[in-house]
This record gives sequence, structure tokens and C-alpha cells, in this order.
Amino acid sequence: MLIVDEGVAEAIAIGAGILGTGGGGNPYLGFLMTREMLRQGATIALVGVEAVPDDATVCGIGSMGAPTVGIEKLPRGDEPLAALRALEAHTGRRVTHLIAGEVGGANAMQPLIQAALGGLQAVDGDGMGRAFPELQHCTFSIGGVPCTPAAIADCHHNTAVFPALRDTRTLERFARAVTVQMGARAGYAFPIMTGAEMKQTAVRGSYTLAHAIGRAVLSARATHTDPVPAILAVTDGVLLLRGRIVDVERRLAAGFARGLLRIAGTGSDAGREVEIAFQNENLIAWDGPNRQRVLATVPDLITLVDEESGDAVTTEITRYGLRVAVFGIPAPVQLKTPGALAVVGPEAFGYDVPFAPLSGSYGGNVLSGT
Amino acid sequence: MLIVDEGVAEAIAIGAGILGTGGGGNPYLGFLMTREMLRQGATIALVGVEAVPDDATVCGIGSMGAPTVGIEKLPRGDEPLAALRALEAHTGRRVTHLIAGEVGGANAMQPLIQAALGGLQAVDGDGMGRAFPELQHCTFSIGGVPCTPAAIADCHHNTAVFPALRDTRTLERFARAVTVQMGARAGYAFPIMTGAEMKQTAVRGSYTLAHAIGRAVLSARATHTDPVPAILAVTDGVLLLRGRIVDVERRLAAGFARGLLRIAGTGSDAGREVEIAFQNENLIAWDGPNRQRVLATVPDLITLVDEESGDAVTTEITRYGLRVAVFGIPAPVQLKTPGALAVVGPEAFGYDVPFAPLSGSYGGNVLSGT
Repeated sequence: MLIVDEGVAEAIAIGAGILGTGGGGNPYLGFLMTREMLRQGATIALVGVEAVPDDATVCGIGSMGAPTVGIEKLPRGDEPLAALRALEAHTGRRVTHLIAGEVGGANAMQPLIQAALGGLQAVDGDGMGRAFPELQHCTFSIGGVPCTPAAIADCHHNTAVFPALRDTRTLERFARAVTVQMGARAGYAFPIMTGAEMKQTAVRGSYTLAHAIGRAVLSARATHTDPVPAILAVTDGVLLLRGRIVDVERRLAAGFARGLLRIAGTGSDAGREVEIAFQNENLIAWDGPNRQRVLATVPDLITLVDEESGDAVTTEITRYGLRVAVFGIPAPVQLKTPGALAVVGPEAFGYDVPFAPLSGSYGGNVLSGT
Repeated sequence: MLIVDEGVAEAIAIGAGILGTGGGGNPYLGFLMTREMLRQGATIALVGVEAVPDDATVCGIGSMGAPTVGIEKLPRGDEPLAALRALEAHTGRRVTHLIAGEVGGANAMQPLIQAALGGLQAVDGDGMGRAFPELQHCTFSIGGVPCTPAAIADCHHNTAVFPALRDTRTLERFARAVTVQMGARAGYAFPIMTGAEMKQTAVRGSYTLAHAIGRAVLSARATHTDPVPAILAVTDGVLLLRGRIVDVERRLAAGFARGLLRIAGTGSDAGREVEIAFQNENLIAWDGPNRQRVLATVPDLITLVDEESGDAVTTEITRYGLRVAVFGIPAPVQLKTPGALAVVGPEAFGYDVPFAPLSGSYGGNVLSGT
């Protein structure tokens, strides 16, 4: 069990930003909300996946919408809990545990906040082990847990429940359409499942990993040392390049931030160049000015950090001249099955390249939250 | 009680087209479905509003989406019943009676079809007494019946339930957004109410009126006489002009068919001209080439029929040269209260003119379905 105090919450937020692989929104606001709740006396703890009883009622939770909107339109804060309560009322089931839909980015903080608000347990695991742009990219759906009933709620506590939909892609389309009408920001609650179903599908130890990453960054900052090897040491990751962003091509298409980044190597990487394509999250990284070699692809994590501070560099804040380190982090095992790759592999995002995994994995073998 | 046989169904479809005031879609497909069910042995009857017990559970029902899509994408047929069943499952209430959300256009046939499919009673009344473009324009909402819980369903029986929304405008926005994702066609079920609530808010005798209009048209056709006075006789309507369409300006804006019609008088109306503005339905009619005088406005019904056949001329099929008769029909009393005019009066549709009602009313005094 991971007890969340202010320092742990700060480290989780930093680590979740890095696990966001360029997307997922900034966890900082969620960290401030968590800290405020702790200061008001809330007790927040994350229980390991294996510690959840098989007959527990677990629900995935998070927020959906446009991260860019979140910068101007602050959430009320309890939208995911309002969605959860609507789902409970609809099903007549009482949820005991919350699990993050995605640990990458802002959604990492939601189970902490909502569990404290609702008097529930939060789980040290999630449904992505990173961030992804759409609901069907979660391991619960990939592992066969039905996506409905599902619920969403806005800051006025307007609610929508989807009792029965054919698949999670349909939920994504329907819920996204209502979310846009809700002002591009909604809390969601799905899937509702047993402890046993959650254990069969969840990525394990996501918060333990986020915490370890954040702690490494904070410790490097405190000692004025290089955060890069510190992050590598806890993630099983590989450094793809240190360099400077020399080109950013960005466009909004169908509700997503799509684009390309070019990073020119510096120091011992001088003369090299890495190109990265993103759709909210970084999808694929090539070596060389003419895409000579694929360095890493989804579902493996391709993430940029500010070389000085170790802070995550999201696709929204990339800009010419920024000095960054580019990592590849091996994806959790649950994202690398043939069934998962059909949903979150490079081809699912339109890239006609095979998935050549980075060595290692987390979420079952490397780290464990139990 | 109005027993629906094939002839009655045909007359209701014709009358409902005319009550559609240019919008609401063509009831013909619904007539064919009703006729097929009758031929397969279904018994369909419409009970008068006053005959519904106060403690009955009544639900509004209909279809929403783009009528233009309905021309190519035929419905499965039971979408509104699927929405109703989702609403029953959500609320734990069992619905006994169905009432049309709107009697104008294609939605008139839904209570007949869904009642036969589901073994329910259909009511001789509705929530508009005509057609209107949006859900909040119904007398149930105007009269204060809560719009939620509400449900919609598509042809795959994907369902969405809205447990609690702040108002019917919000339901309109949210349900419309999901309907677009459903392929621009969904069945809806809302509001769920007691018999007493329905009696306080429904337009009465809508089907008796639609039937009388259709019978007048069919009888004029059979005797090769002029359908226009026959329609006037049963509707309390006034003839605004007989003439020929000389101009149609039409554009799709924000999901609605908006535009202008100009009709040049012929025969005893030669030299006169009438201009009509529409948003799916006809909203306002002016006399003279420079809008010299307002002839009629919403909520009164402004409707065009083909001068020869007496068939409704919807805004989709208006074209240069068509010979039409233009009627004004006084709106039901429920649409003419101050509260109703705030929602369905000319100003609510953006016209800065007062509502000057045509004399008369239906739905309580002129005709009664009891």
C-alpha cells in the first residue's frame, strides 16, 4: 500500500507527466487539488492490485475532453465522482474501489481526488500504463471487460449513462460527442467490474512507477544532478537522444493535436536527428533526417523531458530551441499481446511498420504495487 | 377511442403531413409500416387523453435526426421502443401508454407502430399539435414536466440514458450530439410522466384532427373536388394564398434546413405575393413583396399543400413552379400561453414581431379526442 502524502502526490504528478508520453494533460492542477485535500485532513492511500478482493466492485475513472480547454475552464473537481454516482444509481451496485483509466498525464490524479471525495479506495494500477487518446485504448476493454454500462457527468452534474453499447469505440464516439456539448470537459466512470476482472486486465504498479520516476526527478533537482540517468534507472528505459527541438509542425485535426517534432542531437549525440510523430501522444520515433530507422513505436512509451528540470514536455508546450532528452520506455505487458497491438500498435494509428518492442516491460514483472 | 384500420392510418398520415407545417419528415414510410402491422393482425387504437387514468405511466415517444437521412437510411422500426425499454429498465417503472412527441410529420406514426410492437396503448394527443425542430418545443416541457430521465436508441439498439439534465434545451443538445453519432437517426423516449401530468400538458385530439384532415383530402380526391375548402372546413384554418412558388432559397445551417419561399398569387390572388421563412418548419408568412404585413407566425401553423392532390408540401420538396395553397391554422391553446410563447413564439425563433394569433384553437375546444 502506498500512503499518499504531499511529497508522494508531487512525485506521482511529475512521474505521471512523464508517463503521459507527450499527452494526457498536465497533472499539476490535480496535484494542487490533492494537496489541498490532504491539508484539509483527507487520508489517501493506493492499494496494490493483488490486494483488491475478487468480489470487490471496481470502477475505472477519469476525465475526458480537450486538455487545452482545461487550461482556461477549471473543473468543479467532482465530475468523475458524479459520473460514478450516476452509474451506481443506474446499476444498483455500490463501487468499493477506483482505478485510473490512464496513469499518464492529468488523469493520474483523479482516483486520488475522487477516492478522497467519495470515501473510496484507490488502486495502484490503471488501464493504460501511459496515456492514449481514446477510451478503447484501455486494457480493460482490450482484455474483454464490457465497456457498458458507462456514465459521464459535467460540472453542472448533468449526466449521461450508456446502458448498452456494442463496443468501446462506440462509447468513445458517443461519450466524446456529449463531452463536446458539456464544454469539452467531462468526468467518466467505466468500466464497472469485479475485483477479479480488474486483476485480469489492469496494468499493475502504475503509481509505484510514477512515484519512483517523480522521486528520481525531485532528488536530481535537490542535488543539482542530471535527472536523465535517474529516470532511466527506474523505468527500464533507453535514452534515444539528447538534443534541441529544431522543428515543430502542429495541427488540430478531428479534435486531436497531430504533428511532427524534429530534434537535433547535441553533445555526444551531435550530428544525429530524431523525428517524432504525435496524435496527442508521441506515436513513433525515427532516427536520421530521412526516417532511416524506427527507434520506437506505440505502445512503447516515447517521452520527452526538459533536460534541466526533468519535467515532462507535452506536445502542447514543445517549441523551437527547447533542450530535451528523448526516452523510450518499454510498454506494460498488457499492451503487447496480439489483441492489444491490434488496438494500440503502430498500424492501429496508421503507421505501416511492425511493432519492434524495446526490451523489458513494466506492470507485472518490473515493478509491482502489491 | 379511435380504432386504426388501414383507411384511418392513411388519413392520419396525410393529415399529419399537413400538420407538419413544412417539416417533421414524410409520414408515408410510417404509414406503410403501420399498414403492414395491421395486415399481420395487429390491433391499434388511440385512446382519448381524458380516458387515460391519472395514475397511468405515460411516455412521450418519437424519432429524432435528419429527415433527409431517413430517405436513404430506413429505420429498423423499433428504435423508439428500444429507447422506452432502456428508460423502463433505468427507472424500474413500467410504461402503460405512449404519446407522440409531435403529431406533425413522420413522428405521428410512431405511437401507432411502437404501441403495436410493444403491446401498449397509444393516446389521441401529442406534445406539439404540429411539428417543431427541437425537443424543448414540446408542451410537456413547456408545462413543467421534467425532461429527464430520457433515453435514445439506434438501429443496433445502442442506448443512451440521460438521468438528470438541467433542462430540455440541454437534452436537445446532448441527445442530438449522440443522434449524429448514431447515423443521424435515433428513437427517443421522454418524458416519462403520470397520466395526470400528461393530461395537464398534452395537446388533445391531435389524431382526431389529423384523421379529419386526411379524410377530407381523400374524399376530395375520390370526388375530384377541390381539397382546399375541405381542409379549411375541418381545421378552423384560413387560406392565406393560392399561387405558384416563384423562388426558393434554402441552406443547411447548424443541422437545420433554413430558407425562404416566395409564392406569387394566381386566380383571385393574382398580383399578390407571400413570403415564408422556414427552419425545418415554416415560421412566419408575410404579405406583399416587401414584407408589408405579417400574415401568420409560429406557433400558429403555416402549411402548404399541393393544390391538386392536397398533399403536404414540405420544405424539402418545394420547388419553382409548384402550385400550392397556403393555410394558416390556429395553434393549440397549450402553445399560446405566455410561457409557451417564450419558447415557440416568433421571438424565440429570432423574429422581432409580436405574436398576433389567428382566431380559433384546437386541442381542447375545437376538437376533442375523448
